[in-house]
Parts: sequence; structure tokens; C-alpha cells
Amino acid sequence: MKLEAQWIAGFVDGEGCFHIGIAQHDGMTTGVQILPEFTVVQHQRDAQVLYALKAYFGCGVVRKNHGDRLAYRVRDRRCLVDVVAPFFMKHSLKTSKNVEFLKFRRVLLWMEANRHLDPAGVEEIRRVAETMNRSRPR
Amino acid sequence: MKLEAQWIAGFVDGEGCFHIGIAQHDGMTTGVQILPEFTVVQHQRDAQVLYALKAYFGCGVVRKNHGDRLAYRVRDRRCLVDVVAPFFMKHSLKTSKNVEFLKFRRVLLWMEANRHLDPAGVEEIRRVAETMNRSRPR
Repeated sequence: MKLEAQWIAGFVDGEGCFHIGIAQHDGMTTGVQILPEFTVVQHQRDAQVLYALKAYFGCGVVRKNHGDRLAYRVRDRRCLVDVVAPFFMKHSLKTSKNVEFLKFRRVLLWMEANRHLDPAGVEEIRRVAETMNRSRPR
Repeated sequence: MKLEAQWIAGFVDGEGCFHIGIAQHDGMTTGVQILPEFTVVQHQRDAQVLYALKAYFGCGVVRKNHGDRLAYRVRDRRCLVDVVAPFFMKHSLKTSKNVEFLKFRRVLLWMEANRHLDPAGVEEIRRVAETMNRSRPR
């Protein structure tokens, strides 16, 4: 299945999620690990669309989500910074999910500048993450 | 906001719904009325996307759905037959929602041939409608 960029933008406007996870991690000097993640969840009947997204971006994984649902998931930072973020800068989302994406990208750029490795940076990231995905449960 | 055809296909793959309503209607000889409906529901924060869909198709309405949600809704048969169905024939959906669309279109074509006005036709439509939108609640 071949996907077009605009189809992907439309589908992600509907079904995509940009999430900044913040996990306790005693091994880090800041005590937390920042985990940016892009996901698209579908019923397993539409697995082929998720594999087509994976093929299009050339990175990420398709994994069982919960129940009969699968997720295309990108956690690899190089894939997020070099592939996913530039894609959605070029092919803008049309819904308010674009605001989520822009916050997500801002955190990615901070991480590229290693700001997630000091406590002040973590606090800034936490403040942005707290404003994301409110009232947008799946 | 200007939409591209492929963005619409992707967005509808995620968020669209093709539904065949069957309502009691004592005024009809068959006793029922067949109500095909295409809808896209969004949180009111994304009203502009629904109005952009309305502008693109040149028909349909944007109405309050439930709670803080709005729907772009097409019930007008001319709009469904002449505009919506040809659009999704040209710009195919990629998920299993395409199967729903093809059933929906089949019912529209039956209605164009007035098969919804006799009891045998209603039974055929009912059988198709019963196989649609299973396990696809919003």
C-alpha cells in the first residue's frame, strides 16, 4: 500500500498522537527520563495501514497496543528529529493537533540541545508536556 | 482553510462515518424510511476543519453533535450521490472504512433505482446496513 503525504497528514490529524512521557529514572542525574513518542493506533483489521506508515517513514515499529488494537510507534529520537518532525513541518496538520505537534517538536529541539539533562530544562519540558493532550483521550 | 483531496481521504479514513439509518415512517408504503448519512465529528475547537469540508464539497451542514462536539453532516441524497460518493471513488480510503463506503454507495445506487420504495428492496438494504459499522462505535 502506497501512501501520499497529504493522506498521512489527514490520517494523523484524525488518529495520531504526539506525547511527551516523563518517567522516573534513578540512573539519570535529573531523576527523570524524557520520552517523546509519536503513535498512530488502529484496530488490528487495519494493520496494513500501520505497516504502510512504517514503510513510508522508514523507521518506527508496529506493536500490539491493547486489546485488538495495534500501534505504529516512533520513540527513536533520530527518527523523530530527522524524519517525523520535518514531515509534519512540510505537511502541516490542519486541526488543533498541529499545536500539539509544535510543542512536541519544541521539546525535541530542546533535547537536541541536551536541555533535558539538567533540572531547569526538565522543568520547562514538564510544563510544556502538562499542556499537551488535555481532553484528548482515545 | 484549503483542503487537499488526499488530506480529506486520510482524515475521513480516521474520523468519517458512513451510516444507513432505517426509521419507522408510517407515511411510506414500506413503513420505513432509508436515511443514508455521511458524517465527520470533531471537538468544537476544530470547527474550522468541518467548515472547510463543507466548503470543499459545496453541500452538507455543520451542526452541534453532542456535548462539545460538532458534526459535518450530509443527508441530502443529491450531494451524497453526485459529490460525496464520486469523491471517495476517485480518492479511495485506505482503511477498512473503504468497505463501509462501498456498501454505503451500493445502497445509494439502489435508492437511485427506487429499490428502497418496495419491501424486497428495503429488506436488501436492511441486510447491508446490518453489516455496517459493527464494532466501530465512536
